[in-house]
Amino acid sequence: MFYTLIVGALKNLIGSDVKSSSSALLSLVSKNLSDVSENEVNRCIELILSRRDRKIFIMGAGRSGLVGRAFALRLLHLGYEVHVLGETLTPSLSKDDLVIAISGSGSTRLVITAVEAAKHVGATIIGITSYPDSSLGKLADFILQVKGRVIPTTEANGRDYFARQILGLHEPLAPLGTLFEDTCMILLDAMIPILMNKLNLSEVDLGRRHANIE
Amino acid sequence: MFYTLIVGALKNLIGSDVKSSSSALLSLVSKNLSDVSENEVNRCIELILSRRDRKIFIMGAGRSGLVGRAFALRLLHLGYEVHVLGETLTPSLSKDDLVIAISGSGSTRLVITAVEAAKHVGATIIGITSYPDSSLGKLADFILQVKGRVIPTTEANGRDYFARQILGLHEPLAPLGTLFEDTCMILLDAMIPILMNKLNLSEVDLGRRHANIE
Amino acid sequence: MFYTLIVGALKNLIGSDVKSSSSALLSLVSKNLSDVSENEVNRCIELILSRRDRKIFIMGAGRSGLVGRAFALRLLHLGYEVHVLGETLTPSLSKDDLVIAISGSGSTRLVITAVEAAKHVGATIIGITSYPDSSLGKLADFILQVKGRVIPTTEANGRDYFARQILGLHEPLAPLGTLFEDTCMILLDAMIPILMNKLNLSEVDLGRRHANIE
Amino acid sequence: MFYTLIVGALKNLIGSDVKSSSSALLSLVSKNLSDVSENEVNRCIELILSRRDRKIFIMGAGRSGLVGRAFALRLLHLGYEVHVLGETLTPSLSKDDLVIAISGSGSTRLVITAVEAAKHVGATIIGITSYPDSSLGKLADFILQVKGRVIPTTEANGRDYFARQILGLHEPLAPLGTLFEDTCMILLDAMIPILMNKLNLSEVDLGRRHANIE
Repeated sequence: MFYTLIVGALKNLIGSDVKSSSSALLSLVSKNLSDVSENEVNRCIELILSRRDRKIFIMGAGRSGLVGRAFALRLLHLGYEVHVLGETLTPSLSKDDLVIAISGSGSTRLVITAVEAAKHVGATIIGITSYPDSSLGKLADFILQVKGRVIPTTEANGRDYFARQILGLHEPLAPLGTLFEDTCMILLDAMIPILMNKLNLSEVDLGRRHANIE
Repeated sequence: MFYTLIVGALKNLIGSDVKSSSSALLSLVSKNLSDVSENEVNRCIELILSRRDRKIFIMGAGRSGLVGRAFALRLLHLGYEVHVLGETLTPSLSKDDLVIAISGSGSTRLVITAVEAAKHVGATIIGITSYPDSSLGKLADFILQVKGRVIPTTEANGRDYFARQILGLHEPLAPLGTLFEDTCMILLDAMIPILMNKLNLSEVDLGRRHANIE
Repeated sequence: MFYTLIVGALKNLIGSDVKSSSSALLSLVSKNLSDVSENEVNRCIELILSRRDRKIFIMGAGRSGLVGRAFALRLLHLGYEVHVLGETLTPSLSKDDLVIAISGSGSTRLVITAVEAAKHVGATIIGITSYPDSSLGKLADFILQVKGRVIPTTEANGRDYFARQILGLHEPLAPLGTLFEDTCMILLDAMIPILMNKLNLSEVDLGRRHANIE
Repeated sequence: MFYTLIVGALKNLIGSDVKSSSSALLSLVSKNLSDVSENEVNRCIELILSRRDRKIFIMGAGRSGLVGRAFALRLLHLGYEVHVLGETLTPSLSKDDLVIAISGSGSTRLVITAVEAAKHVGATIIGITSYPDSSLGKLADFILQVKGRVIPTTEANGRDYFARQILGLHEPLAPLGTLFEDTCMILLDAMIPILMNKLNLSEVDLGRRHANIE
């Protein structure tokens, strides 16, 4: 309902110029962020904090995978042992490791299959998705709902990510297709200063570290 | 000056909660977007439109490279022949091809070296950077200035991206370290509906295409 | 039968030194190469030659994917438009495009799913596998049988590649685990001079091209 | 001298068929393997064994990078913490970590820059190269010489890998261009059973591990 209204409003802006298009996009991201549950995001931070000495494995495909990689880089910089699905090296997981799986639809098969394997060995799963009732939502131990993914009824869900690309079946391009990823990008980046704070890392610490090396 | 004020304000918010942290981040992204030159962004869109039948090569390292990849995926979906620096397959470029190089500092050596090679064969270079006076700024035929990257004076600029990672020399983690990438992400995503419009692509077209396949 | 004998012989050599280990490996590769069908490999070359102006898409997971990438680089250098499964950018395929799928077991799910999608749009499939009766063997329009993959009965075949990595289920490490990939590497590299010859490309041509640039 | 003779002999075989081409390639690989120093390869194995609890970082560009990745996968399967240059996540290194840098010419700038950074923090460097007098050879603490790379005098050495690709400056395609990588592939794979043996890992152990999971 909300989206139908926004899409209508947004369509009017599109084609005029990038400024209007980007501020329309920002408003939607802002609305999505305000819909994120405080509890869910706090639990997510606690889980990350509790895995200081364990592996964190970020899973996602396509643009969600790229947003996941951007977050993974930050976790690496915070001192975590972090891995990403789809890189050359995929580690084996075990109990007590943490998986953060990102899929707007919650049904990207590449991600679901990897999550199932991780669950099989007892890893804890955080599912970041627009659909708590999706396969990912059901597999996840904890859900971080981020709105934004609209799934066209014509799309064959549950298809493998690469298969969809080969078939030319892309998620809606714009304006709403990117909303999930953009919201995740901002939300995950906003977690970093909180994590730094809780881990007692400061820019000063990092500066001192640099000094040692130079 | 602006940043000093904002950093001060932002520091107060950090550590409280993700909601405040994310809305502070959004405000900064919004401020940065309003500073983007209308002319620069329009020229960028015209250049992309004019390369409908040529190669577009996206260059970036680290998180800027990930944002570039997210944009490259969209260009691919719009029907472009697009390539990305750092993938297994790096094509040779020639005159009339377009390079979009993303580097906040404008001095990431990996990117600069690739841009120099592209310039050597006559490709047109768009440089997306916070620093028009940087190496990238000077090499670029067109600049799209996006504020957000703050370069600590202690950081050895011009170092190779991978070398800095190996040395543990990361850009500031938060809050400002991510600002350049987040602004680029929103800005580039906001270009997509404009490009769709100008290319006369609609969601209906894409839907029709799906129907053919299914 | 052959393998049982060879494994026995090889086990005796292992642990002594790398020289014996590498010449034992070379003998096995050599034996495997002599088992490759002349007809199958020639048809493969003809198919590649016939796709001079079409896309070639190389598919493989893990080490087979790496061998496929090494071949893809060569095809790119020969002037082909070539793509690789698992990179950021996955193009849509269509009729007349060529897929070269590499899977020793012929049952790597990631590859099978992508092959199915490619077949759906009418692309021609070459399957390089040790098992003509596998899923890949059945999907492929043309098979290039390369021996070397031994599948332990305890291994859950048909599992997704990434899932197996997460579970710690690796193919046999040595000596036979690498035989398929090593044989493929040599075989595919040996196709390059033949392709160069048929395409009338010479080192001299390439030299001339360099001269233009420099 | 040897190569000139071989090239002459090989040229006659090329264009006839893949069988002759592949056995000619195998002979060259075999000759190269016999030229590898027993001492150098043993020291390499000892260094890997001594880094059981440290990071191993594999560096290479292009096809050498792919061969390095194939070896990295095996080290991962043997239980090592291993990283690869060019993946999303580049860890910081420190004293006592081990770098294995693979560059036929010994002058690939991307690799050299990363090696310099690693050396700066005190990591031990193994350089696998055809040229002990190259930049890599001089930076390396230990050299593992593998012949096979022939550097055309017209090639601008020391150029960045990506820059060369963009300029269309490839190493000789065939037959000798691939010799270094193919020899490295066999040599590194031949080290795996030796490492397994020294680490007291057996296929039975791996089988038992599987049983635990299933």
